[in-house]
Amino acid sequence: MKIDLPTLQRFFASAPFMVDLGVQATGLGDDGRVHTRIDLQPRHRQHSGVVHAGVMAAMADHSMGAAAQVQAPEGLLVLTAEFKVNLLRGARGDWLECEAWVVKPGRQLSFTEAEVHAVAQDGRRTLVVKAAGTMALTRAEAGQLPAA
Amino acid sequence: MKIDLPTLQRFFASAPFMVDLGVQATGLGDDGRVHTRIDLQPRHRQHSGVVHAGVMAAMADHSMGAAAQVQAPEGLLVLTAEFKVNLLRGARGDWLECEAWVVKPGRQLSFTEAEVHAVAQDGRRTLVVKAAGTMALTRAEAGQLPAA
Amino acid sequence: MKIDLPTLQRFFASAPFMVDLGVQATGLGDDGRVHTRIDLQPRHRQHSGVVHAGVMAAMADHSMGAAAQVQAPEGLLVLTAEFKVNLLRGARGDWLECEAWVVKPGRQLSFTEAEVHAVAQDGRRTLVVKAAGTMALTRAEAGQLPAA
Amino acid sequence: MKIDLPTLQRFFASAPFMVDLGVQATGLGDDGRVHTRIDLQPRHRQHSGVVHAGVMAAMADHSMGAAAQVQAPEGLLVLTAEFKVNLLRGARGDWLECEAWVVKPGRQLSFTEAEVHAVAQDGRRTLVVKAAGTMALTRAEAGQLPAA
Repeated sequence: MKIDLPTLQRFFASAPFMVDLGVQATGLGDDGRVHTRIDLQPRHRQHSGVVHAGVMAAMADHSMGAAAQVQAPEGLLVLTAEFKVNLLRGARGDWLECEAWVVKPGRQLSFTEAEVHAVAQDGRRTLVVKAAGTMALTRAEAGQLPAA
Repeated sequence: MKIDLPTLQRFFASAPFMVDLGVQATGLGDDGRVHTRIDLQPRHRQHSGVVHAGVMAAMADHSMGAAAQVQAPEGLLVLTAEFKVNLLRGARGDWLECEAWVVKPGRQLSFTEAEVHAVAQDGRRTLVVKAAGTMALTRAEAGQLPAA
Repeated sequence: MKIDLPTLQRFFASAPFMVDLGVQATGLGDDGRVHTRIDLQPRHRQHSGVVHAGVMAAMADHSMGAAAQVQAPEGLLVLTAEFKVNLLRGARGDWLECEAWVVKPGRQLSFTEAEVHAVAQDGRRTLVVKAAGTMALTRAEAGQLPAA
Repeated sequence: MKIDLPTLQRFFASAPFMVDLGVQATGLGDDGRVHTRIDLQPRHRQHSGVVHAGVMAAMADHSMGAAAQVQAPEGLLVLTAEFKVNLLRGARGDWLECEAWVVKPGRQLSFTEAEVHAVAQDGRRTLVVKAAGTMALTRAEAGQLPAA
């Protein structure tokens, strides 16, 4: 799959949960790094006011999957096998920025990582999540996990 | 915190992202196991039609946190330090059921696990996610990670 | 691969690091569960006297790999893609017992888990580690990761 | 704990399993990064000839713990709560080099990462493992997990 930023944006726009959550692709580096953003709303938060871990997990997972897809051989589909999210600090601010990259591409598995920063309008930018994901590449039809 | 099912339900109802996602507490076992449910809607899905991993990650994280909170000593607040989600099969069906439990309670850290099943109206019930989470117990104010 | 206990024991005996560490296969359940054991020696410990996490990680990894191999289709080789170890309590005692099983077998990936108990001669038996591993099945020659 | 390289080397030399495995501290960066090394021997390998994942897991775990200890407040002891190892490629070569660092230090938890490279005498250097670990800081006596 040859991917440019508009293609990447369609990749996010075609996933109903990413649209529902408000995750948008904002950049694609020459090195294949995927950049995404969520403008934070009250519905994204925990009872305590910090952003819910699930919001950042979903954002990181989809961004890592996209980074793996960018580097995947033609005809192979990326599906998440597993991912892990480390919550470094409570996330406050006005929007989240996620950057995802491939640590090790492969034909069967691709290892990816992501960082999420919380950003405030006054310019403060705080690393709040570090994530890692194992992506499976498969010829299976969409929606069928390769493990099946 | 002494917790019964109505208290547990308020715990979920007070977290805006759980309300937004549609996660509801449906049971609390004598053994402290927390049961939750999401009625699936088109917005919860991936482009391929399966449920987005982020939905199940968010559900599992909050359910594991609740299970740890149920067993936490009075006055201590549970915050997720890290969690990992294994996607066993593509999730299809009409609703998701999550069961979360504490593997090892502690005063500083609590180790938890969860399973998510996809259920169809015709009765098919499929294990789709196995998750594990490390929960930190803290006297810090809500929203402040203990790592800070 | 059709595996019985003697075959499983040769699987451990043919891995130099398992021999060096002293890990032995002690049982293979009808359900495919793999049981292993290490008799603890001073060299297995941390400066503090508890068993080193690396000992339990190595034991759990190899036991999970073996459990996946037991259920693998003929001709496919199991290689660890990733594993995670949760250290629940400091491990003291005279030997370790590990039990590993497959949560979800597959043709491309197999999800496995393991528990390690520390056992003392007086009969005390304590759960000290819970582990999870993602195993890749490959036709690649031994030693070549499927990701390559 | 104020730590210099000789102190770090004693930290490794006082852990019997690190001595048994042959892990040595070789450097401590101004930024607190911990560098370690194992000279590979036949006993460190899998049946296939690649280095056993357990060797790299043990090396990465102890190196991450050391990196967290370097930055820990006086009087607090670092204990591994959990760690995860991603096996990127089969490890061949003459020695392993590990570099470990703290992503987020804290008073209760410290998030760490590590990379392991396999190095051959002819100069080839290959990234073979990426690891992440959650370290718990505790006033508990050595050998007592903070979760207890």
